[in-house]
Amino acid sequence: MKFDLLKTCAQSGARLGLLKTDRATIETPVFMPVGTQATVKTLSPEEIEEVSEGIILANTYHLWLQPGEDIVQKHGGVGGFMNWPHALLTDSGGYQVFSLSEQRKIEEEGVHFRHHKSGAPLFLSPEKSIEIQKKLGADIVMAFDECPPFDASYQYMKESVERTLRWAERSKKALAGSDQALFGIVQGGPFQDLRKASFLGLENIGFPGYAVGGLSVGETKEEMLASLDYVKTLLPKDKPRYLMGVGTPEYLLESIARGMDMFDCVHPTRLARHGGAYTKQGRINIKNLQYADSLEPIDETCGCHVCRTYTRAYLRHLFKAEETLGRRLVSHHNLYFLKTLMRGAKDAIRHDRFGDFKNDFLREFDASKR
Amino acid sequence: MKFDLLKTCAQSGARLGLLKTDRATIETPVFMPVGTQATVKTLSPEEIEEVSEGIILANTYHLWLQPGEDIVQKHGGVGGFMNWPHALLTDSGGYQVFSLSEQRKIEEEGVHFRHHKSGAPLFLSPEKSIEIQKKLGADIVMAFDECPPFDASYQYMKESVERTLRWAERSKKALAGSDQALFGIVQGGPFQDLRKASFLGLENIGFPGYAVGGLSVGETKEEMLASLDYVKTLLPKDKPRYLMGVGTPEYLLESIARGMDMFDCVHPTRLARHGGAYTKQGRINIKNLQYADSLEPIDETCGCHVCRTYTRAYLRHLFKAEETLGRRLVSHHNLYFLKTLMRGAKDAIRHDRFGDFKNDFLREFDASKR
Repeated sequence: MKFDLLKTCAQSGARLGLLKTDRATIETPVFMPVGTQATVKTLSPEEIEEVSEGIILANTYHLWLQPGEDIVQKHGGVGGFMNWPHALLTDSGGYQVFSLSEQRKIEEEGVHFRHHKSGAPLFLSPEKSIEIQKKLGADIVMAFDECPPFDASYQYMKESVERTLRWAERSKKALAGSDQALFGIVQGGPFQDLRKASFLGLENIGFPGYAVGGLSVGETKEEMLASLDYVKTLLPKDKPRYLMGVGTPEYLLESIARGMDMFDCVHPTRLARHGGAYTKQGRINIKNLQYADSLEPIDETCGCHVCRTYTRAYLRHLFKAEETLGRRLVSHHNLYFLKTLMRGAKDAIRHDRFGDFKNDFLREFDASKR
Repeated sequence: MKFDLLKTCAQSGARLGLLKTDRATIETPVFMPVGTQATVKTLSPEEIEEVSEGIILANTYHLWLQPGEDIVQKHGGVGGFMNWPHALLTDSGGYQVFSLSEQRKIEEEGVHFRHHKSGAPLFLSPEKSIEIQKKLGADIVMAFDECPPFDASYQYMKESVERTLRWAERSKKALAGSDQALFGIVQGGPFQDLRKASFLGLENIGFPGYAVGGLSVGETKEEMLASLDYVKTLLPKDKPRYLMGVGTPEYLLESIARGMDMFDCVHPTRLARHGGAYTKQGRINIKNLQYADSLEPIDETCGCHVCRTYTRAYLRHLFKAEETLGRRLVSHHNLYFLKTLMRGAKDAIRHDRFGDFKNDFLREFDASKR
């Protein structure tokens, strides 16, 4: 994997970059749709191609449990399994261990926890996570980390950050010899000195890219942006910066303004499955009665297949009739909407006007909330 | 609508025909996928195009209740509503009145019944059914009929057939002036004299096509084929014959051998949504453990997108992980399988060897049951 920083927006500090993996060359900033279980929910790979920039995320935890990494490996990895010939990133499984499992015991060696459905005892460690991620075969893989709640105590967070650093070193060692690119994850919650210690520790180990973890986990927008304002001062300019778990149009633009390059989030597709659709004028819910006989597309300025083809009335009908095509079409639109937004962002960075672009977009997008 | 009988198979009596509507020219025999609520469940119109011959069915009852025929009409009919530029057939709603509603009262004027979910009182008559079908705008529409159970008493069936004839005449009158083609429906259950009276009454009114109703409603295969053996002797050679509610590979071939031209059934897609997939060697259930690490396609002889792209292991994984893409891909395959089967049937009729074709197919397909 290689990363070239092409440009930094003079107006905002937003970055334009080029991420090259063996399977794809991707301009950043980039939003990566989430293909949790080797499928972006409701969409086929051909559709994902239309609505993404050629890189998606898959979840190590889920694929480890179903169908198991060996079956995926037999297909040549997640790409062969789901028929996705482009770039892939897998997470470490750590986030799911801490968000899905209610009973868990963290030790130096790793984490004992229970299956989120069956309750069966499970164990994940840096070595185990990397072993699975090797078999899943993504271009970019993540170091195994703990993602504590944003409001964890300073003492807890300090010990966690130190342990996560030792896990990062073990992750790197476990991946030695692979051509997969391993990203380290900066943790530390709201504490600047812990964020700094986390980053410096990771830098000391040495990674081709750095992720920012422990954000978008329930803290306020102000808290999140304040953390990001600090973390961006730590991160090296020549490495890609991946902000995990973001998101929405607002958060994406605010994070790009803070120098972040890569993003992932289930939100746009989860929202879609409940009828929530992005428009330039803000979010609408297509199930609302007011769209029952609307011959308009979701967003008349959107160039996606769904907006060029279907009316709000038809989409609403599909939801009311509980037809899965509705969830699929709105998922398609929402991802395309973000792709268009990111393309606009890249163009604005190129012309040193990302600040204006962000403000213009948010003025129109947020108007619906006022 | 026009119908040309191109050829009758010398070996079997199976028919090859050409059905021309304003929107499509379709070779028969043809299987029409069912798009109950203006969508063939899980599939987009582009996919339906791949797996059909350009004609699908939509259900008047369902579209009347949701979103309502006026909203569909505002889109230029079902075709405009769901973005299907090819041919459409709507049923009369009669079948749903009798199969979905538990409380109903049949009068000369029409049927009083209750909404299958809300319980709200509803009324459907020949005039109302045709009024809705006009707004839905299909190429082919059906006369409003009663579909009694196969084991109804002779006396009940006789009265029903007579009333359905009067309803057929009212249906035709209600459609006067429209360029939609109206098919009459032959009823009469297992009783030959009632089938004959039903057909002769319809012929007297005059229709451009005839459907055979009241079959595939729970009777045995022998009862159904015996009825069909008789009904085929009644039907005119120069009009298309639509056997309603069929179905499976076996029933399709047996019915084609008995001179039937058009078919519809939810079975292939409903089966698919439960993991049931057709192969030349019979039905399999893709959820079975034996496919967990199979790198084979559903059917290695099948040329569909799904079989060219995905392994049984991946499809099984999608079902185990409860991902809707699995239901979609197997639906796609099953419909394509029937399309291929029907193309094989047409080719065999053309070469006067449909009897051999049917026997060869069924020998391999049924082998799994022995």
